Amino acid sequence: MEKLYVIKVGGNILDDPEQLSNFLTAFASISGSKILVHGGGKIASAIGRKLGIEPVLVDGRRITDAETLELVTMVYGGLINKNLVATLQKNGCNAIGLTGPDANIIPAVKRPVQSIDYGFAGDITNPESINSDVLEVLLDAGLTPVFAPLTHDGKGTMLNTNADTIAAALATALAQKYEVELLYLFEKKGVLRDVINEDSVIPNITETKYEQLKNEGIIAAGMLPKLDNAMLALRQGVKQVHICHASAVEALAQGHKFTGTTLSL
Amino acid sequence: MEKLYVIKVGGNILDDPEQLSNFLTAFASISGSKILVHGGGKIASAIGRKLGIEPVLVDGRRITDAETLELVTMVYGGLINKNLVATLQKNGCNAIGLTGPDANIIPAVKRPVQSIDYGFAGDITNPESINSDVLEVLLDAGLTPVFAPLTHDGKGTMLNTNADTIAAALATALAQKYEVELLYLFEKKGVLRDVINEDSVIPNITETKYEQLKNEGIIAAGMLPKLDNAMLALRQGVKQVHICHASAVEALAQGHKFTGTTLSL
Repeated sequence: MEKLYVIKVGGNILDDPEQLSNFLTAFASISGSKILVHGGGKIASAIGRKLGIEPVLVDGRRITDAETLELVTMVYGGLINKNLVATLQKNGCNAIGLTGPDANIIPAVKRPVQSIDYGFAGDITNPESINSDVLEVLLDAGLTPVFAPLTHDGKGTMLNTNADTIAAALATALAQKYEVELLYLFEKKGVLRDVINEDSVIPNITETKYEQLKNEGIIAAGMLPKLDNAMLALRQGVKQVHICHASAVEALAQGHKFTGTTLSL
Repeated sequence: MEKLYVIKVGGNILDDPEQLSNFLTAFASISGSKILVHGGGKIASAIGRKLGIEPVLVDGRRITDAETLELVTMVYGGLINKNLVATLQKNGCNAIGLTGPDANIIPAVKRPVQSIDYGFAGDITNPESINSDVLEVLLDAGLTPVFAPLTHDGKGTMLNTNADTIAAALATALAQKYEVELLYLFEKKGVLRDVINEDSVIPNITETKYEQLKNEGIIAAGMLPKLDNAMLALRQGVKQVHICHASAVEALAQGHKFTGTTLSL
């Protein structure tokens, strides 16, 4: 099977022009098929404040009311996505910017209201709902899809969806057709044994070890959703998941070993 | 050759929820290959004002400084484009939202400064620079491209480009591969002999008649760029150009004759 990288880059990288430029140069030079998924919450919050929209977050998740939905549709789907695409084009990468409704690639459902009403937040109920045939057409045409963290409900409404979740769903959906490696890139060197010590990266986590680390309370609470997503993706056919610093892409593009945390079953 | 409709819908339709809904329902039901190009200047101006960005227009063309470029990238490429795509998906049309940098479909150059500095305005130097092969891949996959009026300079910078111009360029570029009809839809019934009389639509304009109407001073100044674009597109292989009210798409979708102005050589 052909190899495919699904790479999610976090907001802290997008905010830093120098890191972003280095990242995009390296990303563009990865040979073969690749997909980029980006966040952008901080930029959305900053522009929202100028428009008088104060961000409301519960457990790190944005409450998306109607005006916040307009905000994130503009900022994620327009401002951030199109500038990333234009920069990748400059670097010789034939990028195409997409969101969930485009070619109906990522259908979702509005999150049911339980204890919290997240508003226009979209949940991907099943990776099988992802329209992977269209993605294959785009990849076969030599294009590099760049996804903003937006989905839709199929009834005409956009939905705000976590970028980590989108990356895992795309990776899983494409695991039938490609040998998929999923990379979560952020500002830390990997999953840390000690959250204040950047040198305490745990190099490998298997399913058994993950249970052990959770039981021992070693993994920081904020990492749990990312790791749960990753483990689920592995069980559904994704070959490897890496959690590492954005600079790891430079090593990857040059065919070198990169440091960080590698998850496998 | 297969038929292809390239349809540009103007800002006044986008601003009116009922007209827009009717238009998108009809557009979605046109059988065969089609491309939509949209504007959105009024919505951009309204959001810009909330952000403290006052629109500056010279002869109906927006002066695009750096912050206006961010504004139109957000509003055209994100807010308007993605909501149009989501609504078309609801209506069963497999739309995909695009801008110039996406798959490098519309390369442009920043307009040279002459008497006026238009800022980040993009000119399409030649329809041959349009990446029509990728468009053909998308159309063959059953997708309906929806273009926001944005291009890029290939050096990492987005550019603001007139939607009429984009529609004419796309139509011309695809005229080698498809039997292209280009429709300019707006709030009037067609090209009017008397600008205040909606019943004075000129049904047919040939190249000879166009020269004659111009010489007689019958065509309103604001229509000249649209008509010049249209005539150029016809000379470069586009089969027909129609200038008509947005509701004409309802007749078109049902296979009926539609009223308005038809331009031919």
